Amino acid sequence: MSSLQGYTVPGLPLVREGDDLAALVKSHFELQDGDVLLLASTIVAKAEGRFRMLEDYRPSPRALKIASDLGKDPRFVQAVLEESADVLLERPFLLVATRFGHIGVNAGIDQSNVGEGRILLLPEDPSASAEAIRERLHCDCAVIVTDTCGRPFRTGVAAVAIGWAGIGPLRDWRGERDLHGRPLEITLEAVADEMASAANLLMGEAGGGTPAVVLRGLDYPRCGQSLFRTEEQDVIRRHLRS
Amino acid sequence: MSSLQGYTVPGLPLVREGDDLAALVKSHFELQDGDVLLLASTIVAKAEGRFRMLEDYRPSPRALKIASDLGKDPRFVQAVLEESADVLLERPFLLVATRFGHIGVNAGIDQSNVGEGRILLLPEDPSASAEAIRERLHCDCAVIVTDTCGRPFRTGVAAVAIGWAGIGPLRDWRGERDLHGRPLEITLEAVADEMASAANLLMGEAGGGTPAVVLRGLDYPRCGQSLFRTEEQDVIRRHLRS
Repeated sequence: MSSLQGYTVPGLPLVREGDDLAALVKSHFELQDGDVLLLASTIVAKAEGRFRMLEDYRPSPRALKIASDLGKDPRFVQAVLEESADVLLERPFLLVATRFGHIGVNAGIDQSNVGEGRILLLPEDPSASAEAIRERLHCDCAVIVTDTCGRPFRTGVAAVAIGWAGIGPLRDWRGERDLHGRPLEITLEAVADEMASAANLLMGEAGGGTPAVVLRGLDYPRCGQSLFRTEEQDVIRRHLRS
Repeated sequence: MSSLQGYTVPGLPLVREGDDLAALVKSHFELQDGDVLLLASTIVAKAEGRFRMLEDYRPSPRALKIASDLGKDPRFVQAVLEESADVLLERPFLLVATRFGHIGVNAGIDQSNVGEGRILLLPEDPSASAEAIRERLHCDCAVIVTDTCGRPFRTGVAAVAIGWAGIGPLRDWRGERDLHGRPLEITLEAVADEMASAANLLMGEAGGGTPAVVLRGLDYPRCGQSLFRTEEQDVIRRHLRS
């Protein structure tokens, strides 16, 4: 019987700019080799000082137009555009590809848990953040930065991995065969996204949420390709252009 | 500290038409009240006799046209069309809404693990399947039927819930407040999908996979709305029409 254990990291203080997340986690939880540490993007971003004041943004004409269509603060829209490499939809919500390749509404910018007039950007490069944290853990663990996203075709949000280190986010089943010896049709399983979703069941969303979770007992690949589709690989994204 | 445990149900035999899945699981695993039992759609479909022979399908002109464009067997395309309430994309792959509301490629029809010339349809109504299994478990458990699906914007497949019983698949965070007392922007968390993803980390895809997993330790809502977006709610789906 295979088994999986998931634990919240208990007793973490509110994270502030400059905090050493690796040290914080280690002082509250005894990691073991092979563990996967999942951190909500909000605490990674807070530790990295990714707070911005809305009043510091100067909306472009494009931001003013989009903000007017959506009934949003034009400074907020400007912040989203500045974090974006590509805009997929301008209405009825602002769906963009961030500069690091993740596709999400409002570039994942958070207006909750940060105080009035402030916003919290996603980490600039979540996989680099994960790698820096992993190095300071001094154990053979993987680190995944998670964020919750809406999905086409399905109601509600689910957590996905927006950054990772020490893990290949896709398990490659190529070469495996089914019960009848035929090659599998499904070849790439997004294990880092599935881990993010598993962890989110323990994290919770509200003020009482716990933004760090450890998954134990899983075998996982140690390297591999990215979770982010390029535009050429993405039929749905091309349809949004048309 | 909150914790989550996941277990594969060990020693299940190959499932055949007419098998009582609830009895099979109970004879191999001691369920506790509050457990969530996750079953791969394949074993639910097999127990329900959802095998079909390709030779029994008569391709319509539309199936012949799509099959020619995709280089697929026209009988397979006909099977997909017969399981579909709506076709979202005909190329470069066949993306449909099943009659029970799930959106997926090829209506989730499986050609692996079933033998030459045979296909395995998804259960006709996976939530009804889940409810029937749940009733025979005789404990206060939830049952989720899972399937793996590709996703727009992200590489690889991840498991989602295509049927459920004894659980509200969406956790409603409305009324909850953030650390600063402001209402949360994210209100619906697709916990059944996150559970399906968590379970899939233990299931595996290949011949040695284990199609039944139990998650323990999670608090979850007992009722609530569906995971399937209607067309009116789905901006991306409307764009595929245009």
